[in-house]
Amino acid sequence: MSEISSLGEFGLIDHLTDKLTVVNTSTLRGVGDDAAVMHYASGDDVLITTDLLLENVHFDLTYVPLKHLGYKAAVVNFSDIYAMNGTPRQITVSLGISSRFTLEHIEELYAGIRLACEAYGVDIVGGDTSASHQGLVISITCIGDAPRDKIVYRDGARPTDLICVSGDLGAAYMGLQLLEREKVASAGRKDFIPDFAGKEYLVERQLKPEARRDIIAALAEAGIRPTAMMDISDGLSSELIHICIRSKTGCRVYEDRIPIDYQTAVMAEELNMNLVTAALNGGEDYELLFTVPLADHDRVRKIDGVHVIGYITEEKLGCAMVTRDDAEISLKAQGWNPLKADDK
Amino acid sequence: MSEISSLGEFGLIDHLTDKLTVVNTSTLRGVGDDAAVMHYASGDDVLITTDLLLENVHFDLTYVPLKHLGYKAAVVNFSDIYAMNGTPRQITVSLGISSRFTLEHIEELYAGIRLACEAYGVDIVGGDTSASHQGLVISITCIGDAPRDKIVYRDGARPTDLICVSGDLGAAYMGLQLLEREKVASAGRKDFIPDFAGKEYLVERQLKPEARRDIIAALAEAGIRPTAMMDISDGLSSELIHICIRSKTGCRVYEDRIPIDYQTAVMAEELNMNLVTAALNGGEDYELLFTVPLADHDRVRKIDGVHVIGYITEEKLGCAMVTRDDAEISLKAQGWNPLKADDK
Repeated sequence: MSEISSLGEFGLIDHLTDKLTVVNTSTLRGVGDDAAVMHYASGDDVLITTDLLLENVHFDLTYVPLKHLGYKAAVVNFSDIYAMNGTPRQITVSLGISSRFTLEHIEELYAGIRLACEAYGVDIVGGDTSASHQGLVISITCIGDAPRDKIVYRDGARPTDLICVSGDLGAAYMGLQLLEREKVASAGRKDFIPDFAGKEYLVERQLKPEARRDIIAALAEAGIRPTAMMDISDGLSSELIHICIRSKTGCRVYEDRIPIDYQTAVMAEELNMNLVTAALNGGEDYELLFTVPLADHDRVRKIDGVHVIGYITEEKLGCAMVTRDDAEISLKAQGWNPLKADDK
Repeated sequence: MSEISSLGEFGLIDHLTDKLTVVNTSTLRGVGDDAAVMHYASGDDVLITTDLLLENVHFDLTYVPLKHLGYKAAVVNFSDIYAMNGTPRQITVSLGISSRFTLEHIEELYAGIRLACEAYGVDIVGGDTSASHQGLVISITCIGDAPRDKIVYRDGARPTDLICVSGDLGAAYMGLQLLEREKVASAGRKDFIPDFAGKEYLVERQLKPEARRDIIAALAEAGIRPTAMMDISDGLSSELIHICIRSKTGCRVYEDRIPIDYQTAVMAEELNMNLVTAALNGGEDYELLFTVPLADHDRVRKIDGVHVIGYITEEKLGCAMVTRDDAEISLKAQGWNPLKADDK
C-alpha cells in the first residue's frame, strides 16, 4: 500500500496522467500547464457540462467498486453531451481524496475513468487533486462539440411530436434497492456473499451505466433530428416535465408503452413497490428521452432499442400518463432530489 | 432564514442563476440544458482549467466571509487563463452544500462568484448543486480563448531570457498567518474584534486576490509576448522550477530583486519568520511569473508593477537564488502541498 502524501499533489497528477494518449484532433495540449488547449472546427459549437459526485450522497463505497465509480462518473457526463446530439471530446477530473485512500485506491478509480474515456474516445486534459477531510469528492467537466445545426435543446418539442425513449427504465433504481438490501443483509460481515442471482442486469445498470452513443448514431443514420432531447438522470417523469415546460407544451405518455425489463418487474414485485412509479421516477437510467416530428414515425420505429411512448400536446392539456384503463394521471417531478433533507 | 431543501436542486439552480446576463458573444446558451453551448472565433483556441476548493483544506469559514470565498474561487480560475495569455469567458460552478448552510449563505457565496464574473467579464454557463454530508465543496471550471499565436506555455523559456514577476510576493501567505493568529486569539468568542491595523493589505491579499488582467493587457500593449508564463499559486520557487523543468533550463534569481511589500516584511518580523522563505514559498499570490527575451528588457522594465528578478540559464546550471552576499542557494519546491499529511 502506498501513501499518497509521499507523491505530493504534482507527483500524484503526474502518476495518474502518465502515458495518457490523446485521440481527438481538437485536443492540442492536455495535462501539464495552467490550462488545457483545444481547437474546434470553425463550423462546430462547443458544449460543456459538469457533474459533482460526493461520497455517501451519490455513491456508497460499501458496494460500489472504485473502478466502476470512475467509469460511471465519466459516462454520466458523456451522456449529457450526447443528449445535446453532440460528441464528447475532453474531460477534466478533479478529485478530493481523504486520508483513508491509498494510491492503489485512486489508481483503481482513475483506471475506471480512463477505461470510460477509451471506450468513448474522450481525452483527459486536466484536473485538480487535493486532500479532503471529508469523503471522496469527484468533479468531472466534459467538453464536446457538434455542428450548430445538429444541436438539440430541451425547448424544441412541438404538439403532435412523438415522445421516444431508448432502452428500458427503472432498472438502475431497482439495482440500487437490491444493493442496499444486500448491504443491510451483510450487516458489515466481510465474508458475506451478496445474492444477485437472476438480477445481474439491475446491478450492472446501477454500477456501470452506458451513455447511448449508439442511439445518437442510429438517429443520424436514419436522418432523424430530434426536436428536443435530454438524458434521463432524474427519472422519466421529471425529465418529460422539463421538456414540456421549456417547450411550452403538454404531453401524454401511455403506461403500457413504458419499456421495463423483466428483472425490474420481478424486483419491484419482491419489494412490493409500484413498478410504473419506479420506472417514472427511478432515475440514473441514462437513457435518452427525445421527441421527433410525427412524420418520422416509421423511421424512428425501426431503430433498435427506441420506444415511442406518447406524444406532445398543447400546453394547456398539461403533462399526464394514460393508464392501462384509460384514466389520466398528472405527471409529477418526483425525481431523486439530493437537496431534500429526507433523502439520504 | 430559508431552508435550501424547500427549493430542491432545480429550484436552487433557478434561484441562483436567475437574471444572469451574458456578456461574451462566444456564449450561445448558458444554464438550463444538458450542456452549455459556446462558439469561438475560428482563429482562436479554447482554454480550460479547473479548481476544486474544499472546506478546512483550502478555506476556513471561521474567518473567510462567503462572499469573499466566492470571489476568490472564481478569480483563481481566471488567473490560470490569463497565465496562458488568454481571456476567461465562461465558468461552470458546482457546489456541495451541507445542511448547516441556509439559502442566504449560498446567495452570499454566489454573489461573490457573480461579482468576480462581472468584474472580469465572464459568463456563468452551468454547474451542479448537491447536498454534502461533509463541508462546503466548490468546483469551478473556467473556459477561455486566445488566438493561437498568442498562447504562452510553461515550456518556452530559453537561456538568457529575463525572469519577471508582477506585484509583490508573500503577502497572501502572511495574511493567512495573521488570520490564523487572530482566530487563535479569539478563542471562539463572538465579540472578539480582530486586530488587523496596519496590515489591511495582507488580509486583502489573502481574502480577495485579483487576477493580473492588467499585466496581460500591458504586455500586449508593449508588444511583448512572454516566452513562458504561469501564475504563482504555490509559491515563486515551485513555479520557477516548473518552468525550468518544462523548458529544460536552469535559472538564477536575485534575492534582493524579489518584490516584497512593507507590511509583509513587518509581519514576518513579528512572527519571527524568514521573509525571503515566505516570499519564495508562500503561495496564493496569484501574481504572474513570466520570461521574456533579453531584447525586451527596456520595454518590460517600463511596465508598472513588473519586476525583473533574474534570468534563465542552461539546464546544467540548475535553479538557484543568488543571495545578497553573492552565495547561490538551490531553489526547492516547498510550495504548499495539500496532499501532505502534515499540512492541515
